[in-house]
Amino acid sequence: MRDVAIIGVGMTKFGELWDSSIRDIFAEAALKAIADAGVDHIDSMYVGNMTAGLFVGQEHIGALMADYLGVVPIPAIRVESACASGGMALRQGLMEVASGMSDIVLAGGVEKMWDGVDVTYALATASDQEYEVYQGMTFPGLYATIARAHMHRYGTTREQLALVAVKNHKNGSLNPNAQYQMEITVNTVLNSTKVADPLTLLDCSPVTDGAAAVILCPLAEAKRYTDLPVKILASAAATDYLALHQREDIIALKAVRVSAEKAFKQAGFGPEKIDVAEVHDCFTIAEICVIEEMGFAERGKGGEFTARGYTALDGKIPINPSGGLKSKGHPVGATGVAQAVEIVEQLRGDAGKRQVKGAKIGLAQNMGGSGASSVVHIFGVA
Amino acid sequence: MRDVAIIGVGMTKFGELWDSSIRDIFAEAALKAIADAGVDHIDSMYVGNMTAGLFVGQEHIGALMADYLGVVPIPAIRVESACASGGMALRQGLMEVASGMSDIVLAGGVEKMWDGVDVTYALATASDQEYEVYQGMTFPGLYATIARAHMHRYGTTREQLALVAVKNHKNGSLNPNAQYQMEITVNTVLNSTKVADPLTLLDCSPVTDGAAAVILCPLAEAKRYTDLPVKILASAAATDYLALHQREDIIALKAVRVSAEKAFKQAGFGPEKIDVAEVHDCFTIAEICVIEEMGFAERGKGGEFTARGYTALDGKIPINPSGGLKSKGHPVGATGVAQAVEIVEQLRGDAGKRQVKGAKIGLAQNMGGSGASSVVHIFGVA
Repeated sequence: MRDVAIIGVGMTKFGELWDSSIRDIFAEAALKAIADAGVDHIDSMYVGNMTAGLFVGQEHIGALMADYLGVVPIPAIRVESACASGGMALRQGLMEVASGMSDIVLAGGVEKMWDGVDVTYALATASDQEYEVYQGMTFPGLYATIARAHMHRYGTTREQLALVAVKNHKNGSLNPNAQYQMEITVNTVLNSTKVADPLTLLDCSPVTDGAAAVILCPLAEAKRYTDLPVKILASAAATDYLALHQREDIIALKAVRVSAEKAFKQAGFGPEKIDVAEVHDCFTIAEICVIEEMGFAERGKGGEFTARGYTALDGKIPINPSGGLKSKGHPVGATGVAQAVEIVEQLRGDAGKRQVKGAKIGLAQNMGGSGASSVVHIFGVA
Repeated sequence: MRDVAIIGVGMTKFGELWDSSIRDIFAEAALKAIADAGVDHIDSMYVGNMTAGLFVGQEHIGALMADYLGVVPIPAIRVESACASGGMALRQGLMEVASGMSDIVLAGGVEKMWDGVDVTYALATASDQEYEVYQGMTFPGLYATIARAHMHRYGTTREQLALVAVKNHKNGSLNPNAQYQMEITVNTVLNSTKVADPLTLLDCSPVTDGAAAVILCPLAEAKRYTDLPVKILASAAATDYLALHQREDIIALKAVRVSAEKAFKQAGFGPEKIDVAEVHDCFTIAEICVIEEMGFAERGKGGEFTARGYTALDGKIPINPSGGLKSKGHPVGATGVAQAVEIVEQLRGDAGKRQVKGAKIGLAQNMGGSGASSVVHIFGVA
């Protein structure tokens, strides 16, 4: 396998993009990434997208984006793993370059969620329809169940959950591409509308339109395009049972643990070497569970770890400097690619006010459903 | 890149599978392929699926199928390229083995189309919503437009179109997995219900439930599992503008031509070396256009080529010995994989009454939308 580098990144502002269609925003992100890389062509492309079929009545998203980007007849394929679609698109692009089949590959992601559909229904198609959705479960309910179990077993507090949102909004306030560039307090979170007990509105990532893209090439050729290529040190994916009741332990996100272990094994080091990480905080409890499964925090101690400030921009392991899904926004198919965009900017030293000082090794963890898919990438300054 | 072989194949019967859910039929095909290969595990899997979100209200299809197949936590990803989803899933599986990332990979496809949705609407999401669907176009209309243009420019006759259906139903009558195992006549086609002039009901592939799967491994290891591995000699994909009006020529299926040219270049020979081919006959006119673009027939002569019997089981180049989409059925996400299953059975000499004598090299061509995606694989006896 050839080593692979990221040589260009681009994304749209995340938010309510009423003036643009799904094809417009994908093209915007892709063109920014192409310009950033300075390439004059791409050989192939992948598009992470969860459910444009339900959100905007359009499938065949790979070819459509190649069409609108003006790059036909190159191969263009859509990849779907629910909210992990973006991370999986990056992984497929990596594989194509690693295999030697192509040299310059675009891996992007896009979702347009504000165009009129019942978003809760569309997102619920990422859980087990027969055993969960038909019984009335939706995603806030699933994560609220996990949160209650975590509080019960480990003594995690309501305030600790809220502190994840407070920290991520603080980071997001420093990110010009974030959907919500405003700080919030623990009280704001606790007093916001109840969604699914114990989670309130500000524990939940928002509904977002957005797109992101990266350009991949063989590491050996990366210096032709940029002085600051970012090497992909590891890529690992895993799955779990979709329905919570089928898992040995409803708190354990086994796919996250397995994908992280495989990625650290590939990289040849453990979580202690990571300088900065973007992880899948679709709900505040998700960030707590994920940092435990990945080994950043001890099991059961993710809430306390957060409350001590260890995950803040200037903490031991800054988590979600971009603002995360919570504040930057969560256009589901784009999220995994946007995480990679953030890590590349951090490793280049281009992250402005939210720059993690001296970051040389970064990680992105992207999750689908209530944890049934997880993909982890580790990146390093080349 | 490592050479890759198919060492196992499996599929469900195609048809109206009222007693089974999408997860049941995928598992059935996957288990058959696993048993056929004689492997005791798989490292990773791909699922081709066009739109389970619209057909059965379920996304996150990769992880769900790994869950139901009992193979979590292995990576499992869904691939979507409209009706070319299956062929693209095969291509992604091939890339994963070729890259060295995994050794034993399952590439499958599935679609459940009979569970109650407006199928015409769901399928139309493969065309350009903004420029075609919102103006009233559906797939029969798009292919009828192509058919009219072909008849006008090249003198292709209504009877020649019908002869594609007659030939494919004759082949399908010999295939125990086909949805419609009955022969038809030119008169039956001409007198069936008009769908979109000049196409009648029997020019159109049917609505189908079904699944198919293949097991891939490095060619160097294939003989450990089977005496008859089938080597993948080429894999190429291409795209085109989704909307017909954007193409230079509405008859030309440029993605088919480009993907075929690339595949033949990889294989090191041209169409004259192919002993048997499965191609994407979603409508009778599609088979005629495709055999022209691939170089089996001269441009404009596909109808005459068919009428002369050259594409029959005992013709110069047998096309769609399985019965094709027309008679075997077209569960859209499964079709590309089912084509590979048929070619493998042909090259093994296992195709029963529809066996093409002495077939050593086979080809599968799978298409999305009105030709905006195409993927071609060439297979040979290893």
